Amino acid sequence: MSTKVVDLRSDTVTKPSEAMRAAMAGAVVDDDVLGTDPTAHRFEMEMARMLGKDAALFVPSGTMANLISVLVHCDSRGSEVILGHNSHIHIYENGGISTIGGVHPRTVTNNPDGTMDIDKIVAAIRNPDGALCYPTTRLICLENTHGNCGGKCLSVEYTDKVGEVAKNHGLQLHIDGARIFNASVALGVPVDRLVRAADSVSVCLSKGLGAPVGSVIVGSKAFIEKAKILRKTLGGGMRQVGVLCAAAHVAVRDTVGKLADDHRRAKVIAAGLSKIKHLTVDLTSVETNMVFFDTDPQISPGKLCQLLEQRNVLAMAVSSKSVRLVIHYQISDSDVQHVLTCMEEAVEEILSRNAKFEHLTNGATTDSYGN
Amino acid sequence: MSTKVVDLRSDTVTKPSEAMRAAMAGAVVDDDVLGTDPTAHRFEMEMARMLGKDAALFVPSGTMANLISVLVHCDSRGSEVILGHNSHIHIYENGGISTIGGVHPRTVTNNPDGTMDIDKIVAAIRNPDGALCYPTTRLICLENTHGNCGGKCLSVEYTDKVGEVAKNHGLQLHIDGARIFNASVALGVPVDRLVRAADSVSVCLSKGLGAPVGSVIVGSKAFIEKAKILRKTLGGGMRQVGVLCAAAHVAVRDTVGKLADDHRRAKVIAAGLSKIKHLTVDLTSVETNMVFFDTDPQISPGKLCQLLEQRNVLAMAVSSKSVRLVIHYQISDSDVQHVLTCMEEAVEEILSRNAKFEHLTNGATTDSYGN
Amino acid sequence: MSTKVVDLRSDTVTKPSEAMRAAMAGAVVDDDVLGTDPTAHRFEMEMARMLGKDAALFVPSGTMANLISVLVHCDSRGSEVILGHNSHIHIYENGGISTIGGVHPRTVTNNPDGTMDIDKIVAAIRNPDGALCYPTTRLICLENTHGNCGGKCLSVEYTDKVGEVAKNHGLQLHIDGARIFNASVALGVPVDRLVRAADSVSVCLSKGLGAPVGSVIVGSKAFIEKAKILRKTLGGGMRQVGVLCAAAHVAVRDTVGKLADDHRRAKVIAAGLSKIKHLTVDLTSVETNMVFFDTDPQISPGKLCQLLEQRNVLAMAVSSKSVRLVIHYQISDSDVQHVLTCMEEAVEEILSRNAKFEHLTNGATTDSYGN
Amino acid sequence: MSTKVVDLRSDTVTKPSEAMRAAMAGAVVDDDVLGTDPTAHRFEMEMARMLGKDAALFVPSGTMANLISVLVHCDSRGSEVILGHNSHIHIYENGGISTIGGVHPRTVTNNPDGTMDIDKIVAAIRNPDGALCYPTTRLICLENTHGNCGGKCLSVEYTDKVGEVAKNHGLQLHIDGARIFNASVALGVPVDRLVRAADSVSVCLSKGLGAPVGSVIVGSKAFIEKAKILRKTLGGGMRQVGVLCAAAHVAVRDTVGKLADDHRRAKVIAAGLSKIKHLTVDLTSVETNMVFFDTDPQISPGKLCQLLEQRNVLAMAVSSKSVRLVIHYQISDSDVQHVLTCMEEAVEEILSRNAKFEHLTNGATTDSYGN
Repeated sequence: MSTKVVDLRSDTVTKPSEAMRAAMAGAVVDDDVLGTDPTAHRFEMEMARMLGKDAALFVPSGTMANLISVLVHCDSRGSEVILGHNSHIHIYENGGISTIGGVHPRTVTNNPDGTMDIDKIVAAIRNPDGALCYPTTRLICLENTHGNCGGKCLSVEYTDKVGEVAKNHGLQLHIDGARIFNASVALGVPVDRLVRAADSVSVCLSKGLGAPVGSVIVGSKAFIEKAKILRKTLGGGMRQVGVLCAAAHVAVRDTVGKLADDHRRAKVIAAGLSKIKHLTVDLTSVETNMVFFDTDPQISPGKLCQLLEQRNVLAMAVSSKSVRLVIHYQISDSDVQHVLTCMEEAVEEILSRNAKFEHLTNGATTDSYGN
Repeated sequence: MSTKVVDLRSDTVTKPSEAMRAAMAGAVVDDDVLGTDPTAHRFEMEMARMLGKDAALFVPSGTMANLISVLVHCDSRGSEVILGHNSHIHIYENGGISTIGGVHPRTVTNNPDGTMDIDKIVAAIRNPDGALCYPTTRLICLENTHGNCGGKCLSVEYTDKVGEVAKNHGLQLHIDGARIFNASVALGVPVDRLVRAADSVSVCLSKGLGAPVGSVIVGSKAFIEKAKILRKTLGGGMRQVGVLCAAAHVAVRDTVGKLADDHRRAKVIAAGLSKIKHLTVDLTSVETNMVFFDTDPQISPGKLCQLLEQRNVLAMAVSSKSVRLVIHYQISDSDVQHVLTCMEEAVEEILSRNAKFEHLTNGATTDSYGN
Repeated sequence: MSTKVVDLRSDTVTKPSEAMRAAMAGAVVDDDVLGTDPTAHRFEMEMARMLGKDAALFVPSGTMANLISVLVHCDSRGSEVILGHNSHIHIYENGGISTIGGVHPRTVTNNPDGTMDIDKIVAAIRNPDGALCYPTTRLICLENTHGNCGGKCLSVEYTDKVGEVAKNHGLQLHIDGARIFNASVALGVPVDRLVRAADSVSVCLSKGLGAPVGSVIVGSKAFIEKAKILRKTLGGGMRQVGVLCAAAHVAVRDTVGKLADDHRRAKVIAAGLSKIKHLTVDLTSVETNMVFFDTDPQISPGKLCQLLEQRNVLAMAVSSKSVRLVIHYQISDSDVQHVLTCMEEAVEEILSRNAKFEHLTNGATTDSYGN
Repeated sequence: MSTKVVDLRSDTVTKPSEAMRAAMAGAVVDDDVLGTDPTAHRFEMEMARMLGKDAALFVPSGTMANLISVLVHCDSRGSEVILGHNSHIHIYENGGISTIGGVHPRTVTNNPDGTMDIDKIVAAIRNPDGALCYPTTRLICLENTHGNCGGKCLSVEYTDKVGEVAKNHGLQLHIDGARIFNASVALGVPVDRLVRAADSVSVCLSKGLGAPVGSVIVGSKAFIEKAKILRKTLGGGMRQVGVLCAAAHVAVRDTVGKLADDHRRAKVIAAGLSKIKHLTVDLTSVETNMVFFDTDPQISPGKLCQLLEQRNVLAMAVSSKSVRLVIHYQISDSDVQHVLTCMEEAVEEILSRNAKFEHLTNGATTDSYGN
């Protein structure tokens, strides 16, 4: 019996591959704060080229990538950013653009597919004429794929349209592309084409791509120059950072080609879940490497995850009725089958315990396991 | 023929009455920054008592009143405030709580009556347990009456319920009571009772109450102590401010009793407008001193206001299809009739011009006047 | 015996004159937030003209005047301002430029005459070439007269020289001219000439000029446009503010001509103090309306002020060994003589109490009154 | 002839050792943002123990370590920090505590030995009693060793005294201990004893200790809990950060014992420099691993460094007349001799060029090489 842990909590949990470890061990490095680390330099050039922008910057995290991007675009006091009400920047990044950066967020409702209606974006733009009582809109943010919308992809047509809106109103467009390679692969659109309309893109290297640490920001040379200063201010300037860039280089080289497999496996797992009684999954919602499913009231997501963990399968309860699974390159086809088997067992176990408990308590309706 | 201007753009436009002017001229004053202006002191005590709180602070504007209140409650870096998506603080105060105060706004949808659903408020509360990726909710803001919702009143029951939510979650409750006296009068609830659940209230003295300048914040002594320091930081500490407080005292004394008349006149004007062809007004929406009405597509709000201005009636076009009228104590019953007459004339004039223009252009459909 | 209080704590303590009160009572006003108050408009134009700049803005306080000025010049995140280590902005304005505005202060030592050495200013300028680890200097601030340096005047030559440094390095120059009219009068240099090198000047109307409330900022039209938005953000936008501007207009009209008398009286009082045993005053330091004097160890400044207060003379102890007196237009020649008489009496009283106390305690050396 | 580069620009330039590289390659890691990276956890515990504090946090840089520390201690709006006018935080960290954190810096003059006079610190403390016009002092920062003061050590007695001042005034004490191990070794005081008085310490792992990337903060559990949230906000949370912690663990294990050698070599190099004509070095100033020396006017530091670079020796010109050399564990005794030889050659070359140039230009006195 295998003791391997199948970790589906997130695609951030991958362990560095042997090739990445070797790359770290062998990296030629120097002091990147002094601007002389060759591995960092080469990797940044490579990423800029891939994303079709002029320059790139390696940063310790996706949060810093987005924070720097928003702050560079919103350089002046009194700036406002338009972003999805459900976006990662608005929900999961500590409100840092306001609390650290003093930028005012103006949310537009995200549709279930991750888009914001174009006319709502336009209606939210403020203060081109300097009215006294408004902040000034300077930036629109998109997220592709959109995590809180189940890993959905924004099409190139939609992205271009938002880019046009931004341009027409003198605004910048930033794409939180933490999982932009997933979108590129799923849509079959080259990643540089997909982000062509954007003035800046953040890309996470330690999500689906599997690098141990880091994100990258791409944009114009002037943008990256400012980003570099802000990275230093925030404390993201690192010395022999080439050790991380070397691993990230391997991640990009080795893993992009495997993302299609992740997406295929996500669909397989979704299909399997849809056949398990008491679980509901919208098969059409699985576009990339994320699977969200709902549980019937008698199945507590917290308890379900707990029983899965006893079987060395890690999942994440994201609300009182839903669970998130994220596929990455260290999840194999057999892992997928194993997960489905464990899931069936766990559901069974809960139901049988419920029955026993109901018998004992003569029909109490509360969840006996909690969350 | 009268040349008096009937100014309905806002209730901020009132001119100081003779009594207010006399009060300014005769005020006994001293240096309030040094803490020794007796008129300011007395007025603040009076307002604290009226609102049922322990202490009060006079500030130059409603914007500063709200800014200080939010910032005092959100004293620590990383704070979040829950407020209506359509609230004055979020829309019309330059995003200052973020751009100046670093507070992260989390909006909840305002219903047409100005409320936010209680369960949505509860769902928006974040980070009692210190999760890494969230800001920490510290404050809920209500607005009563709610300007962007047509001057609607929040009931005492609703306010108490929100106060209970705040208390249960260790949060503070601030009421943007710019027009809280209008709400109190319209609801027939004493103003101190209406705000009992609040930890702080801002009250505008230069809206319906008619003072030339100023707002007041009320709350606990500790709250007002902190507010006083922040007022100094923001530059709201004023020297012989008693001259303004003297006028404000007269405003409160003389005008609160007239608010019911404002509300009655608003209803009269709304009823009158509802009888004018091509204008639409929801009579049930007029709860206090504000009247919003829509115009048919052939009537441009901008043109309408322009033609009214030629008749010495000032109104405010607030969108491409609606106009706002605000009643205050310097609008008489005969002004109301005059406004309705002018409105009919203006509508007629637009229609006749449209007809002429259509004749000339043989049926072009665009608005010939613009906005 | 007169019960008139002679208040020398500051020149902020003046009570509005009858002419100012009449002006307030009679002011033609409208809603200045809507941009239509004629008195405010006229007063701002008048001040801009007097100071030789293109535009002006009335604000509630000197603190807001400086805060807005610094923040407009330091519009971008990562800005640094060079200012005197002893300047009002750095010491007495709550650190607001940092705590509210995120601007980094870089202090240069103030000489006893209020200047900063030109070469030290130049040496403090940072980051024209965008080094990673520095904020970017954008502004130099002078203060004229310099309050913490005893009301000393900066000469026009010095000011011009600093202006040249600013220009040569692409920086802005702001003058905290809270008492710039005192400097102008004392130096015999027209005020517009004195501030010619400055991009912005704040002028306090409620210090020596005697207005009840307010300061004014002057600068270019573009600067004032931005200042107006920031004034709204901070909460300094006021409605029928013409009532304050009317009083301020009278203050400027009636009081500038009396400043020379204030300076003369300050010299008289200083000369008188210098003859009182146990008090020391540097006569050459009295250039305008401020007198600082030191007390011998046996005279506690706090006790001295307390005994003066019993004689209806108010002064301010500013350290454990010095006292500040500030002259203003409501201090007459006979008040000056009265103050000197009271001062002698108070010193006598302390000494005789000390003697008695020493007798009782057989020579204990601690200050028996404390501070 | 060796082509090895002897890099003395900083102790940040060390390349990871074989042992560090092996540690990175072999590290057992997990997702540290989810809190489950065992190597990060173990390393943080180890560092907390070494420094004698309850908890520790790994961060990407010294700048972030200081930024987080200051911001956690200065959690409330309106906070002021007392720090050296010449300290790293004030001079080289982009003013981030203000521009990002809104904290007001209040500088006290650093003496040449890195201390600030105790009485000046006490005099700079502000607003225990909540005066209206002051920010509130919450923190004192020391730096040990003090980089801008030549790597001088603060004694344990001095540190304890400042700690007592902090305690007596209800303030926190933070030590920027980027090179605290150098101080500990040079003073012969255990590092935990040396920082006992501090509420928090930042320690740089990638300076003299030689780790490729990272710093660590230590303090109480409550402090580190808040620091962790702020690290996430700033974007310093990293996923499989164990790879960096594994290298840092090796660095601490292998390099602390070598710091005494660095200090010895710094003294040797200083002694050698003192014998080279036209260079001046204060031998008593070399307490740890830094050597600053001045050059006679005919020797441009920039040119000197340039000629050294041609000989594969890297040094840093830090002003128009001085040069900095920093020793680290990858500088051997023979490197030291090599550097001294190259220095002599470079000085000779400059002098002979100068002579030639002077001959040609018949005695012009300006530096012919620039800087």
